[in-house]
Amino acid sequence: MLIVMRDHASLQEIEHVVDHLHSAGAETHLSQGEVKTVIGVIGERELIYTLDMEGFAGVAEVIRVLKPYKLVGRDFQAEDTVVRVGSAEFGGGAFGVIAGPCSVESSEQMRSVAASVKAVGASMLRGGAYKPRTSPYAFQGMGLDGLKLLREAGDAAGLPVVTEILDVRDAEVVAEWADVLQVGARNMQNFMMLEELGKMRKPVLLKRGLSATIEEVLSSAEYVLKGGNRDVILCERGIRTFETYTRNTLDLAAVAAFKVLTHLPVIVDPSHATGRRDLIAPMCRAAVAAGADGLIVEVHPDPEHAKCDGPQSLDVPMFAALMDGMDARVALEGKHL
Amino acid sequence: MLIVMRDHASLQEIEHVVDHLHSAGAETHLSQGEVKTVIGVIGERELIYTLDMEGFAGVAEVIRVLKPYKLVGRDFQAEDTVVRVGSAEFGGGAFGVIAGPCSVESSEQMRSVAASVKAVGASMLRGGAYKPRTSPYAFQGMGLDGLKLLREAGDAAGLPVVTEILDVRDAEVVAEWADVLQVGARNMQNFMMLEELGKMRKPVLLKRGLSATIEEVLSSAEYVLKGGNRDVILCERGIRTFETYTRNTLDLAAVAAFKVLTHLPVIVDPSHATGRRDLIAPMCRAAVAAGADGLIVEVHPDPEHAKCDGPQSLDVPMFAALMDGMDARVALEGKHL
Amino acid sequence: MLIVMRDHASLQEIEHVVDHLHSAGAETHLSQGEVKTVIGVIGERELIYTLDMEGFAGVAEVIRVLKPYKLVGRDFQAEDTVVRVGSAEFGGGAFGVIAGPCSVESSEQMRSVAASVKAVGASMLRGGAYKPRTSPYAFQGMGLDGLKLLREAGDAAGLPVVTEILDVRDAEVVAEWADVLQVGARNMQNFMMLEELGKMRKPVLLKRGLSATIEEVLSSAEYVLKGGNRDVILCERGIRTFETYTRNTLDLAAVAAFKVLTHLPVIVDPSHATGRRDLIAPMCRAAVAAGADGLIVEVHPDPEHAKCDGPQSLDVPMFAALMDGMDARVALEGKHL
Amino acid sequence: MLIVMRDHASLQEIEHVVDHLHSAGAETHLSQGEVKTVIGVIGERELIYTLDMEGFAGVAEVIRVLKPYKLVGRDFQAEDTVVRVGSAEFGGGAFGVIAGPCSVESSEQMRSVAASVKAVGASMLRGGAYKPRTSPYAFQGMGLDGLKLLREAGDAAGLPVVTEILDVRDAEVVAEWADVLQVGARNMQNFMMLEELGKMRKPVLLKRGLSATIEEVLSSAEYVLKGGNRDVILCERGIRTFETYTRNTLDLAAVAAFKVLTHLPVIVDPSHATGRRDLIAPMCRAAVAAGADGLIVEVHPDPEHAKCDGPQSLDVPMFAALMDGMDARVALEGKHL
Repeated sequence: MLIVMRDHASLQEIEHVVDHLHSAGAETHLSQGEVKTVIGVIGERELIYTLDMEGFAGVAEVIRVLKPYKLVGRDFQAEDTVVRVGSAEFGGGAFGVIAGPCSVESSEQMRSVAASVKAVGASMLRGGAYKPRTSPYAFQGMGLDGLKLLREAGDAAGLPVVTEILDVRDAEVVAEWADVLQVGARNMQNFMMLEELGKMRKPVLLKRGLSATIEEVLSSAEYVLKGGNRDVILCERGIRTFETYTRNTLDLAAVAAFKVLTHLPVIVDPSHATGRRDLIAPMCRAAVAAGADGLIVEVHPDPEHAKCDGPQSLDVPMFAALMDGMDARVALEGKHL
Repeated sequence: MLIVMRDHASLQEIEHVVDHLHSAGAETHLSQGEVKTVIGVIGERELIYTLDMEGFAGVAEVIRVLKPYKLVGRDFQAEDTVVRVGSAEFGGGAFGVIAGPCSVESSEQMRSVAASVKAVGASMLRGGAYKPRTSPYAFQGMGLDGLKLLREAGDAAGLPVVTEILDVRDAEVVAEWADVLQVGARNMQNFMMLEELGKMRKPVLLKRGLSATIEEVLSSAEYVLKGGNRDVILCERGIRTFETYTRNTLDLAAVAAFKVLTHLPVIVDPSHATGRRDLIAPMCRAAVAAGADGLIVEVHPDPEHAKCDGPQSLDVPMFAALMDGMDARVALEGKHL
Repeated sequence: MLIVMRDHASLQEIEHVVDHLHSAGAETHLSQGEVKTVIGVIGERELIYTLDMEGFAGVAEVIRVLKPYKLVGRDFQAEDTVVRVGSAEFGGGAFGVIAGPCSVESSEQMRSVAASVKAVGASMLRGGAYKPRTSPYAFQGMGLDGLKLLREAGDAAGLPVVTEILDVRDAEVVAEWADVLQVGARNMQNFMMLEELGKMRKPVLLKRGLSATIEEVLSSAEYVLKGGNRDVILCERGIRTFETYTRNTLDLAAVAAFKVLTHLPVIVDPSHATGRRDLIAPMCRAAVAAGADGLIVEVHPDPEHAKCDGPQSLDVPMFAALMDGMDARVALEGKHL
Repeated sequence: MLIVMRDHASLQEIEHVVDHLHSAGAETHLSQGEVKTVIGVIGERELIYTLDMEGFAGVAEVIRVLKPYKLVGRDFQAEDTVVRVGSAEFGGGAFGVIAGPCSVESSEQMRSVAASVKAVGASMLRGGAYKPRTSPYAFQGMGLDGLKLLREAGDAAGLPVVTEILDVRDAEVVAEWADVLQVGARNMQNFMMLEELGKMRKPVLLKRGLSATIEEVLSSAEYVLKGGNRDVILCERGIRTFETYTRNTLDLAAVAAFKVLTHLPVIVDPSHATGRRDLIAPMCRAAVAAGADGLIVEVHPDPEHAKCDGPQSLDVPMFAALMDGMDARVALEGKHL
């Protein structure tokens, strides 16, 4: 941590800050120019992150050089974490494709889509049972019945399943029926849920929040790892910007940045990122090239009658076309489907 | 709802859309230009918001003219909702000032600040017992002990108290100790929590999410009202933008917009919005002039040693200076403290 | 400037950076922790801002503590700059109100609006002769004829006039007809134009760019002052964010921040910021309370038939209502109309 | 254009709007629900874009279905425009790579980098002679001398050259020395410059503004085409968002969207988009996969001593590594280097 003092801060102010740091157990290094004084602070992350020095007299700026996370960083673990769920794998050269509808609607819909996506190479089935909807008047999902239909369809097709957990109180029931627990964008900083998932032994798919920085995504993942659960897959799904042509702005540079900063696998959701069917295939291809370890794509057997996200759902032939040649693209990046 | 068809959409595509709408129970009006066809859709909000027509062939754009909320709108209730908590009032001409530290730290701290802010005109005490922190290594709050200290300090000073609820499982215990339940920015779209609060009979202070639109704030409030709880106070606390000089960008036009769109009271949090002590007083004054029904301000007896948000906390003399003349400013807007 | 080296940067890398700094004429202070080394760099702004050290091996981050501007800062000049244009004054306690239509359309329109706004307290007339329009198919303004009509209307009403300069080649002709030269949001970083205006002796009204930070606004103003022209009025007019209810997001905290950072007068344009007629009056009041030194408001004698910006133009009675009581509000902030 | 009237707008208000539209030469279609009335407006783009109906009484919203551009759209010209500059080609299956330093610094630097990038497959040389810099204290470029060195180096290596034009008054001199005229992000809405370039017969490289929407980029390109110059290359270079880890947020979905909406070639600038050397190669690969028709990359023979943008410049071996295998990636998308 660097503490930049205001121009011409008094000796007393500087000493006051330094004394406080010492009494808290930190070491300091002073760098004094004619105008600016900078105090370097050295100590454990756990200590540094409880020091709120911005309130002290004479302090102009506090710059944290130490990241707010540790366990998720490449410094802590250099080699890739591989998350394995049944036959699906993410990270360390393994590339996984998750596909399925926005929401679970019926047994036929789920069984049909599961068989179809499995046939062309998907390695996991998705489907929402609990749906976060802006308006309380929109379809909220089938709940537990949906979980069961998802499980059943996954089993029938031989695919592990992932679904979103909306309410921390549902953690156990969702974990009972699903193989991977998805934390949606709106819950990325629901720290209580992250702590709960940290205690569980099910992989977590953590989606980036609509306005979450790269550092915040990693800090949220840190909550899960700190609890003891090492199986976290990060998911870039677009951030909110001024652009309205696309639903969100897909930040593929964040994918490349994650691959530098963390050992956790990173996948991309082009469906929610763009909200436009015709942009999904090029964004899937771009995600592979950017270094992603997988994809999560909305596929519906009949997008016209999808209960949500119709405009961004691929139908089965479109998904098949997307998957055609995917293995070659993945291989070009030194990975395998 | 308006459905704009793609240029030269086929007759078949148009008919297909219209047929689907009719079978769902909606009425339609067709407007056909040479190039563009627009289908007007008429029906109840509950119906309209379950129609996801974007997925249909030939559809270029779906424009929802009907808002995703109803109960919170001025159309539904023209006169201001007044939220009363003990002697504190918000809305309908009443202006309330909530003050207190970011987090509850000790009995002395709370009692001292409660007495001080009460003395200069605050009408409610704030203090965080459960703190949402980006990093798992930062101070997370005192929990239940904090709740009790907050209650005790409020009672001693004769002030009702508000605190943030972080975990839906804590709803009852928080409601036991606090008079108003605060939903923080990160939980603004935690719909499960909103539904739970809708069932309770405690006023809710709903903070705008970091990247929430005005319409989304109102839709979240709708979740609470739909559950039967009419006592919701909205809070503008800054949105996330590219500007880094301030912690967030305070959107006072949203306050004026809320006053047009909803009957619910609206307050402003300049502390979290700016993150800078020297901008708080001017932003409080601007909030009053923009039409706000109240303020929530971080005040700490000793900001230097605050466990969080030091740089944005006022000390007691600063808060007293801010409150000096506040009654005249509030009166200028036709309201009263 | 602080140069934070990567963890465990080699001694050779550190020395290489230090040597380069010394050979460039800067002084350095080294702060070496076990893990982190930080190099403090001391020198003149002109030197520091030509040092691009980010490219050196071993450098993790370069933090500039010295601002990219000097002449516009409070450090350089503590007392307020007062910009005087005829009887209109901005800054140092003087509050000016600029009013008029988005674009000059006819002699009658301009004379009518000039007389009307003057009658209720406006101190300057605005009107666009050259209009920046997103689409080449939209009305582009009357050009030189518009300038003449603006001048004529201002003279008739006894008001100085301000108009936007779109093309640096028009600088002289615009300066011939107008009293204040406005640099629009889209040209805030048209540095060639800023340099040209720096050589002139006409006050400049510099609007904040749609995505310009506070620091960038000040740096653009620095271009004008560096050229020798000290009469710059800054204008906050909303920034571009994800919110679409308002045309832009009015950043009133920036106004308060400008008042801390610079001695230049700061005014607010609520018309372009909100794009909504019903939000203009509350935002004018909030701007006064936030510490602004003036306002610029779109007023049209017949907004329905305005050639641009109709939805955000006040008609004359609305503007009169807004100005009613404005002197008392301005006086409350210790200023005068 | 659709005009949505306010709920329960009066018959008189509706008639007033319709009458005005008819008198302006537009046709109308009325769609009247019980609550909502929507007026469809039909007419030429030139007419529609001069109708500002938002100011009329009773109007709630005006929705423009017709795009603000025409000539750049796929509707107007379905097949790809191919921009040819010497041996370099962009569009229609041709993929071009532009490389070179941020700014021209010396003859040796330019000749060295030109030969190096040519050797590994670059098809055009870039180099800034006029540099837009936030601070007036930063290096502003070599001007005319820089232009000459750029030309000389390009000729020596057999590469056409592109450079930024900062001042409309320099249009002729820049056109004399450069093959392609670059409009930088800050000038994307410098409409006077766009009009001037529309009259010239040199290809234009138009960079997306920091906060420009996809529609605004296309509208700016329309200015150039409307003037008669059909050779415009669009360039995605990142937009400004809240994320600070990268310099800007590269919007690759915009590239895919441009390919749908316009026939103009689209290239990507990963250097300015990310500002980080280690993200450039993955973003180049992602750009190819997203459908880009080319790249523009900063390459410096000695990034440490670059006068600007050092941290985002590749050195020659890094660029060579990036180009290695580029032809196969381009071929995978059905294009050729």
